[in-house]
Amino acid sequence: MSEAFDAVDVISHKRDRHELSDDEIRWVIDAYTRGAVADEQMSALAMAVLLNGMTRREIATWTAAMIASGERMDFSGLSRPTADKHSTGGVGDKITLPLAPLVAVFDVAVPQLSGRGLGHTGGTLDKLESVPGWQASLSNESMLGQLEDVGAVICAAGSGLAPADKKLYALRDVTGTVEAIPLIASSIMSKKIAEGTGALVLDVKVGSGAFMKTRDDASELARTMVDLGTDAGVTTVALLTDMSTPLGLTAGNALEVRESVEVLEGGGPDDVVELTVRLAEEMLEAAGRGGQDVRAALTDGRAMDVWRRMISAQGGDPDATLPTAAETHVVMAPSSGTLTRLDAYAVGVAAWRLGAGRARKEDPVQAGAGVELHAKPGDTVREGEPLLTLHTDTPERFERALAALEGGVDVVDGGTAETADSVVIDRIAADSGR
Amino acid sequence: MSEAFDAVDVISHKRDRHELSDDEIRWVIDAYTRGAVADEQMSALAMAVLLNGMTRREIATWTAAMIASGERMDFSGLSRPTADKHSTGGVGDKITLPLAPLVAVFDVAVPQLSGRGLGHTGGTLDKLESVPGWQASLSNESMLGQLEDVGAVICAAGSGLAPADKKLYALRDVTGTVEAIPLIASSIMSKKIAEGTGALVLDVKVGSGAFMKTRDDASELARTMVDLGTDAGVTTVALLTDMSTPLGLTAGNALEVRESVEVLEGGGPDDVVELTVRLAEEMLEAAGRGGQDVRAALTDGRAMDVWRRMISAQGGDPDATLPTAAETHVVMAPSSGTLTRLDAYAVGVAAWRLGAGRARKEDPVQAGAGVELHAKPGDTVREGEPLLTLHTDTPERFERALAALEGGVDVVDGGTAETADSVVIDRIAADSGR
Repeated sequence: MSEAFDAVDVISHKRDRHELSDDEIRWVIDAYTRGAVADEQMSALAMAVLLNGMTRREIATWTAAMIASGERMDFSGLSRPTADKHSTGGVGDKITLPLAPLVAVFDVAVPQLSGRGLGHTGGTLDKLESVPGWQASLSNESMLGQLEDVGAVICAAGSGLAPADKKLYALRDVTGTVEAIPLIASSIMSKKIAEGTGALVLDVKVGSGAFMKTRDDASELARTMVDLGTDAGVTTVALLTDMSTPLGLTAGNALEVRESVEVLEGGGPDDVVELTVRLAEEMLEAAGRGGQDVRAALTDGRAMDVWRRMISAQGGDPDATLPTAAETHVVMAPSSGTLTRLDAYAVGVAAWRLGAGRARKEDPVQAGAGVELHAKPGDTVREGEPLLTLHTDTPERFERALAALEGGVDVVDGGTAETADSVVIDRIAADSGR
Repeated sequence: MSEAFDAVDVISHKRDRHELSDDEIRWVIDAYTRGAVADEQMSALAMAVLLNGMTRREIATWTAAMIASGERMDFSGLSRPTADKHSTGGVGDKITLPLAPLVAVFDVAVPQLSGRGLGHTGGTLDKLESVPGWQASLSNESMLGQLEDVGAVICAAGSGLAPADKKLYALRDVTGTVEAIPLIASSIMSKKIAEGTGALVLDVKVGSGAFMKTRDDASELARTMVDLGTDAGVTTVALLTDMSTPLGLTAGNALEVRESVEVLEGGGPDDVVELTVRLAEEMLEAAGRGGQDVRAALTDGRAMDVWRRMISAQGGDPDATLPTAAETHVVMAPSSGTLTRLDAYAVGVAAWRLGAGRARKEDPVQAGAGVELHAKPGDTVREGEPLLTLHTDTPERFERALAALEGGVDVVDGGTAETADSVVIDRIAADSGR
């Protein structure tokens, strides 16, 4: 017994609503990574944290301990400031694709270390892998070189960052403890801080298709993450954005790349353009390069130019034809009127079932699968006209995808959609008063 | 995936304060016993139960599911009714030893399936094993035979009863989830109900030396267990009894056997006699044999006669000299006055450290080790006169035992002890109104 603490004591303190000391937190994360604290002990602690919460100091120490479990990256040798964006995940959220090249236009380096999708929200790497030849894995050296040469890189996060988080996340996933806001915040922020970015903009989604279903929960998560970043010396700001309906008109891998290219060509759906521009403005501001005409770089081809270089640098062919699914099925509007609701979660699950997403880490995804929207909430539709097109290589999947959509679409004659004027609901920045 | 439920769903329901269905509970206990629900999942569920509670129906179903995980015993073939007693554990609690033979005098069979001690409270089997030759392990056949012939048996519980409880208890022990009242109640009652007794009297200890430190917690545990027994068709009653100071004048294995024999000879400390008689009356009443002069059987030798036959039947020699420790150390009264406090927990830990108890299941215990009291709270003591005698075979243990006693003894000139008139604080019986 050469351990500094006893796991049962630490669990019991949190269970009994005491604040854990810095030493207790550092010990439990380190001992869990080493295997001296068992999975069944950490899951009991995670449930106690979920139900009893943690203070700002506890969360900051917890996050720092997870960062300390692994390696850190260093972008200080670059000639430009860095800015990063993280989204909590939503349906049709392809924003990283046009955003990274757009920000790089203004001489801010964008290192987007991303993941693959699990469940009903897609992963950025899965989307880009539909571009023929494109490779997600880069050495640290290649990544730094691309950041210096091109200014933007989207690649797979190395396994050396915050290994404690990797182990803890896998445990939370099977023990009903994913939903703890302190643990979600520290999981995201430990990786982002370890990545060494100087500025970070968080896109915290709210609504049926998001992990946070209510504005209160999303605000709490955003505030917790902004505090964590600020305390760690990273200029951090969060936007709360709507995820009650899919972002843009596509959910699926190649479908979303196609839509992203439209945005980079100066077109694309209004909500995707709005959010891309707004996040770019926030990233530039946080990196000390604010006040520039961001939108112009989408219409004059400068962002597209960076995109093409970014894709090429990772072996992709920006001119290649994107894969399409073998089969399509059109869903018609059930009646005439206003489309008052098109539920993000329903569309996300449908896209997932069509093959765009995976249920387990090791599952493959279909590049061409997904859902294409022909109308958005607030639009007028006519009975029998196309509302959605479902895409898949495996038509036996249509039935379960259609089942997912049941109850997810409302068309009301003379109705109005409860859509906000802007996809951005709120902005949360550092609060020095706490 | 042929499982009826998903573990994460069940955990999440309890986490989110929903009532679990009977099917969910039956599945999770069965799947945990089979290994289809992992330790880290069960510990997260146990923490959620600890923090969010369970309803009476949930606890009853949980208990029934644990009983269903193993075998059940059946005493219905006996010519007499059966009554059982369970104590939640205290310091100096040797009551089972005089109680079992005393109740058997009145033609009620007493099957006391007992355990070994862990931590600062002693175990009944450890105590009896200080009697030369006595064997704790009996086959079911021998146990039934002894119940018919002698009327009383104290032996080790078989491993076939409630195996789910055995697995869950070991898990709770290392995950900070021992303290959940629904889980404590179902753990105790699953074994007692599986044992097949017709009547059950619970001795729920309250105070520093007990598992339940407050009267509220003890009442809640007692009420939960009485409800469980009643719902399962067992006549169940609970007494709340004081454990702020040790029971009787001894804490240790052979020391407690000696004191029990004194009680069976018509002597012994008042509190031990009072509690033995009161529990015997409750057991006889619950078994339908109430209204008898129990105390007389202690003074006229009838209880002693059953004791001798009970010990002999399990290979013990009732006339053998009991082992004594090799070394003693006397603790003197620090000043003259009233002994206002002699803390049960401090004495329990001292006895444990002297060798009377064990820290791990596989540790041996010393038969002669323990603490002998020369005064009880309320008694007048004089400075320099013996207050306690510590017994051990290994004198290097005295130092840590004395450290445990520090702060556990108060002598106040002209003071009064906060001792109750009776060791019995409250009685909790079936409440048909719930």
